[in-house]
Amino acid sequence: MAPVKNGRYLFKEVPTGFPELGKTMDYDESETIDPDTVPLNGGFLVKVLVLSIDPYLRGKMRNPSIESYSAPFYVGEPFYNYGVGVVVRSENPAVKAGDHLYGVFKFQHYVIENEPSRFKVIENKEGLPWSVYVGVCGMPGETADYAWKEFSRAKKGETVFVTAGAGPVGATVIQLAKSQGLKVIASAGSDDKVAFMSEIGADVAFNYKTVDTRKILEKEGPIDIYWDNVGGETLEAAIDHAARYARFIECGMISQYNTSQPYPVKNLLKVVGKELSLHGFIVGSLRPKYEAEFYATFPARVASGEIKYKEDRVRGLERAGEAIVAVQSGKNFGKSVVIVADE
Amino acid sequence: MAPVKNGRYLFKEVPTGFPELGKTMDYDESETIDPDTVPLNGGFLVKVLVLSIDPYLRGKMRNPSIESYSAPFYVGEPFYNYGVGVVVRSENPAVKAGDHLYGVFKFQHYVIENEPSRFKVIENKEGLPWSVYVGVCGMPGETADYAWKEFSRAKKGETVFVTAGAGPVGATVIQLAKSQGLKVIASAGSDDKVAFMSEIGADVAFNYKTVDTRKILEKEGPIDIYWDNVGGETLEAAIDHAARYARFIECGMISQYNTSQPYPVKNLLKVVGKELSLHGFIVGSLRPKYEAEFYATFPARVASGEIKYKEDRVRGLERAGEAIVAVQSGKNFGKSVVIVADE
Repeated sequence: MAPVKNGRYLFKEVPTGFPELGKTMDYDESETIDPDTVPLNGGFLVKVLVLSIDPYLRGKMRNPSIESYSAPFYVGEPFYNYGVGVVVRSENPAVKAGDHLYGVFKFQHYVIENEPSRFKVIENKEGLPWSVYVGVCGMPGETADYAWKEFSRAKKGETVFVTAGAGPVGATVIQLAKSQGLKVIASAGSDDKVAFMSEIGADVAFNYKTVDTRKILEKEGPIDIYWDNVGGETLEAAIDHAARYARFIECGMISQYNTSQPYPVKNLLKVVGKELSLHGFIVGSLRPKYEAEFYATFPARVASGEIKYKEDRVRGLERAGEAIVAVQSGKNFGKSVVIVADE
Repeated sequence: MAPVKNGRYLFKEVPTGFPELGKTMDYDESETIDPDTVPLNGGFLVKVLVLSIDPYLRGKMRNPSIESYSAPFYVGEPFYNYGVGVVVRSENPAVKAGDHLYGVFKFQHYVIENEPSRFKVIENKEGLPWSVYVGVCGMPGETADYAWKEFSRAKKGETVFVTAGAGPVGATVIQLAKSQGLKVIASAGSDDKVAFMSEIGADVAFNYKTVDTRKILEKEGPIDIYWDNVGGETLEAAIDHAARYARFIECGMISQYNTSQPYPVKNLLKVVGKELSLHGFIVGSLRPKYEAEFYATFPARVASGEIKYKEDRVRGLERAGEAIVAVQSGKNFGKSVVIVADE
């Protein structure tokens, strides 16, 4: 095989609001690689097949002097995120050509890695599309499953409010809640997303852009559990409509990621009076406790159709930036994945 | 005994900001009672000895149409709160003359009650002043003990920040934390309170009116546990200076009780990134789990001097309003109690 272009999607500049194509990020084809001959130095060469696009990536596009739970992206370097790749060649006995690896990959076509423990070999007995392993059977599914188990203290008959309910985390939460007999209120930002949320079981699904969240919660609440993916004004409304002892699962706050003017929450006094608990978390902290059970059960539940999912696929690494912007602005419908290559 | 005045301290009007003497509340001597002959109808007559003045009373001085965890006071009726009284006469076999009862009493000299289960008979083998049973051995002590056990997950070597650290709850928290080997940062609003907090073990005690809370937390933090008695701007600072996985025990928010302009908290996004948990609670919800252990151990620990306390005594029911205002404005130093009568 002759050398081929090893296209990369690069972080170019720290955005102030939403990331911008061609300005804060761009596709680059300046590098080449010869997959047959590139020296591996004891490592293994992986051809990236799918990459995940997630809301939390925005937090990594920051000035690296700002500390946060997740390392920053560096200007001039490729983005990186969860993905699935296939091993092309290996000089490490723990990994063999043809293995499919799940883990964090740079946004480029070919990567050389040397630490097998950073990846999980996916057997995929169920024959699911590889993209599912960055969605409902990957980090977003883990997020929903782990935090629901850890924090929800869900009881049959209770009411949960799920925001971003058509995304991979929210949609999984809706289904977990329904399987335990809860009433589910779910919101998203388009009518087709609302239809999808109803299809997967939400009892009350609404478009927060056309319907007043507070009116829905007033009518359908109070809520015993709030799954927060958006923060800000919606979090404030959820506090106002929370039942006593309600649990708030603080998974993300996408309304706050692309603004320099964070929404000021004015009703925290109710956290005391209503005896609310708020639980912020990052999936990695819960992984050691729940991972084994997740991977032993979730792929089969997805393959059987018990747990449904929706994907928003973009084909071609050069379109990764489009997908990033879509996710930050809520324009994706379902789990956003970039199909980098076929096998 | 001839009829005597049965003075009462009345709620007169819903305050908009701080409660006001003679306007939103006032002393009243229009009623009389003859303790020897007043009909009990199967109940028991109690002479009130001490009444507790607590920050949370402000929340009860509201328009009764506003729902909250705690029932509202009614205009024209006496206030009521935790207190200790002695039984003068009884027609109920569960209670006998001379018994000392702990429970919620109206703000008046004599009350007729008929439900013994609403009160606890205090043996007081330790011979503590009765006022201690509305302080460190009563609701405030319970509050500190129960929530510390339930939510702190304290580990030796961790750092806790306690606000209102000279009050009965905060001072007890400081001592519980020190007994478990934590580093304690504590704030209060006067230099004599700072001296008291140091005396009971706080490693870093400061006057938040003269020293910048953020500077202290920057130097002495990050904090693993935040005991919140004040809310608002201080809560925001605590979030900024919280360590990963920090626990916030949301006991009260006195900075938010007397204002119609609640402080807008702008950094809740950090609840996710730092994986913080916030726990609002009301002491009554934790009581069934911890009460027996508390009353079996706390009075002895206080009597032995292991747990120290400070009281701010006001003598005479007619001065209850002064004490209420002092507590809302932080002018009391130690547990505020009204000595209604000697035995």
